[in-house]
Amino acid sequence: MFVLVNLKTYPCDPVAVAEAVRDVNESTDARVAVAPQAAHLERVAETGAETWAQHVDPIDYGSNTGHTLAETVAEAGAVGTLINHSEQRLKLADVDGAVEAAERADLETVVCANNPAQIGAAAALGPDAVAVEPPELIGTGTPVSQADPDIVEDAVEAAQAVDADVSVLCGAGISTGDDVVAAGDLGSEGVLLASGVAKADDPTAALEDLVAPL
Amino acid sequence: MFVLVNLKTYPCDPVAVAEAVRDVNESTDARVAVAPQAAHLERVAETGAETWAQHVDPIDYGSNTGHTLAETVAEAGAVGTLINHSEQRLKLADVDGAVEAAERADLETVVCANNPAQIGAAAALGPDAVAVEPPELIGTGTPVSQADPDIVEDAVEAAQAVDADVSVLCGAGISTGDDVVAAGDLGSEGVLLASGVAKADDPTAALEDLVAPL
Amino acid sequence: MFVLVNLKTYPCDPVAVAEAVRDVNESTDARVAVAPQAAHLERVAETGAETWAQHVDPIDYGSNTGHTLAETVAEAGAVGTLINHSEQRLKLADVDGAVEAAERADLETVVCANNPAQIGAAAALGPDAVAVEPPELIGTGTPVSQADPDIVEDAVEAAQAVDADVSVLCGAGISTGDDVVAAGDLGSEGVLLASGVAKADDPTAALEDLVAPL
Amino acid sequence: MFVLVNLKTYPCDPVAVAEAVRDVNESTDARVAVAPQAAHLERVAETGAETWAQHVDPIDYGSNTGHTLAETVAEAGAVGTLINHSEQRLKLADVDGAVEAAERADLETVVCANNPAQIGAAAALGPDAVAVEPPELIGTGTPVSQADPDIVEDAVEAAQAVDADVSVLCGAGISTGDDVVAAGDLGSEGVLLASGVAKADDPTAALEDLVAPL
Repeated sequence: MFVLVNLKTYPCDPVAVAEAVRDVNESTDARVAVAPQAAHLERVAETGAETWAQHVDPIDYGSNTGHTLAETVAEAGAVGTLINHSEQRLKLADVDGAVEAAERADLETVVCANNPAQIGAAAALGPDAVAVEPPELIGTGTPVSQADPDIVEDAVEAAQAVDADVSVLCGAGISTGDDVVAAGDLGSEGVLLASGVAKADDPTAALEDLVAPL
Repeated sequence: MFVLVNLKTYPCDPVAVAEAVRDVNESTDARVAVAPQAAHLERVAETGAETWAQHVDPIDYGSNTGHTLAETVAEAGAVGTLINHSEQRLKLADVDGAVEAAERADLETVVCANNPAQIGAAAALGPDAVAVEPPELIGTGTPVSQADPDIVEDAVEAAQAVDADVSVLCGAGISTGDDVVAAGDLGSEGVLLASGVAKADDPTAALEDLVAPL
Repeated sequence: MFVLVNLKTYPCDPVAVAEAVRDVNESTDARVAVAPQAAHLERVAETGAETWAQHVDPIDYGSNTGHTLAETVAEAGAVGTLINHSEQRLKLADVDGAVEAAERADLETVVCANNPAQIGAAAALGPDAVAVEPPELIGTGTPVSQADPDIVEDAVEAAQAVDADVSVLCGAGISTGDDVVAAGDLGSEGVLLASGVAKADDPTAALEDLVAPL
Repeated sequence: MFVLVNLKTYPCDPVAVAEAVRDVNESTDARVAVAPQAAHLERVAETGAETWAQHVDPIDYGSNTGHTLAETVAEAGAVGTLINHSEQRLKLADVDGAVEAAERADLETVVCANNPAQIGAAAALGPDAVAVEPPELIGTGTPVSQADPDIVEDAVEAAQAVDADVSVLCGAGISTGDDVVAAGDLGSEGVLLASGVAKADDPTAALEDLVAPL
């Protein structure tokens, strides 16, 4: 299982969470990574944790102000990027452009979407993975694997029908190891996490609990 | 072949073009329709021409100001709608929502996209048809069927791979009957037209020329 | 006082509400107008009611698909338009462009904004009027004139400081004649209404109640 | 004069340009600063150059993915931020929210706009400064101070009319010291630069030329 901890713009110490991610990654069969804010990428990558960007723009080098360039996040140490997170929804043409930009910079790509139909659409754009996150469950503490298991299975089916090489992750409300196991049982190859780890008093303990049943 | 004349916000007489569309539709095997501005839908539909909306929003009845409701355009006489035209690009989630809204109102749907990858994505959202329009050719007078025939064939292949029930149209630069025939030879089941008819001194003659070789 | 009834995309009969607006307008000193969806503009204007658009785009005649052209809504019978409603927020440059487009088509303009600072900004763009609508009160039934009277007075002050020729309206939660009177006492020269009239079983009675104390 | 070098997403070495900015700033009466990409803020600030962000989002700590938080760029070493650059245009409400977010984080603010009307609007939101950049001149090498001197004077007048405490900068096409002097003569208290310095083979020499006549 791939466990990606999205730090969003939470008031956490990104280096401390990154060190927890790095340490737990070394002690488990799961693959654990962290996605900090762009301004924290370099310091987070220096911890040795697997580092992801939260977003890249569908742009190239040039006259773009306030944008996130795939090459820049790659040079800062990111090895992958989220695209089209529900808090950063892009136009269809720009999801395509962002996947292309990320691939140009050798970033692994996870395109997020809300439901199985959109997951199929995202898979058609050729990312490495897609992630289904029902917006109504994000931040609720109610795991998608319990609240809406069909959506995960349908997302896996939708992605497979379009491109069998695209992995499917899921997110929203996942906070325990049982949730992660349940997600895996539904066909998910990974999970997106956020507040459960980022806001934990002890991120290492929170992550260890999450990967313990794997 | 399906020939859809998009009137955009051109300074044309929408009723005159609609009458031309209606008349030519009756005299040819092709299916010819017209997409006026929202404020012109009722008057255009009253001509008896097949009438389409240029856009619907991913909304339902409710608190939406300045939006285009699928049910409203259907009641005004539209039988179909463009979605995600390159001049009205939507977020991926909103393309999905607009297709859903259109289907709720029994509108036929054509989702536009720029390239074969996006066409595959659009097809995964379950519209009746998709339309590939390379943005760099729109308004050029250089037909996509000549300038970039591969993009049409690749779009047909991409849509078929995702959902064999989704028709593929193409657009950009089409202004003659030969262009329409060439589009059909590449696998396209229809074309999107705009200025060639909307700005013609004699829209009926322009349309007759377009459908003559069909 | 100016009373503008925004029909949004409510499931109401726009012609019936327009007739109520027309009739009540004739029987009161207040000026009462109605803003239907774009596809309903012509039929609404034909009632003789003062008709407004809910939105115009910052565009001119040309290649714009799914947009609302100021000239088109003016020809359909609108005499004014809302711009930047909280359900149709525009980029700063596009608020400017929409005001310019509306003026080009001789439409009266009301630019909406959330708070006094934005009201000052909107006034600087030279519209005929601005309207302050605290988003958190829209649709609540709690009138802005009671819930947050300071915001109305501060909006009037902010607009006056920038351009004394710009009128100030207010909206959000207004549903009774007392609310309208209270808005006027705070310096507002008009109110934006929506569900209170649009969803009323008897729009004429609802409007008569609203203007009775004026 | 304030000279702000916007590095956009140019393929330059941000640290090398920052060192040039720092060195030239120490040798001139002008105030020279640099605005790198978010991922470069920390390394650029460590050079000792005055460091600015290119953009901040209208958000607070919380569930925001792929956004730029004002507090984060401030902690990374930025002392100010551009807002609403023509390559990153924001909704009116979001320009207001971004100014508020920046002030919360003690960042100096420069709100960009296209023309004098929008400059007045931007000034009404209470930033420290506004910057007029006619989009049609950006990247042309034709300085705004020559191509359209009226726009600078009108912008100064528009800002002064709204809030005399708001400074006015200008940008677009400025590449020589004479351009900077001309901008100052028109009432501008600073200039935005980009490619002229960022893409120079010798950024220090380019900057020295720019500030030499001051």
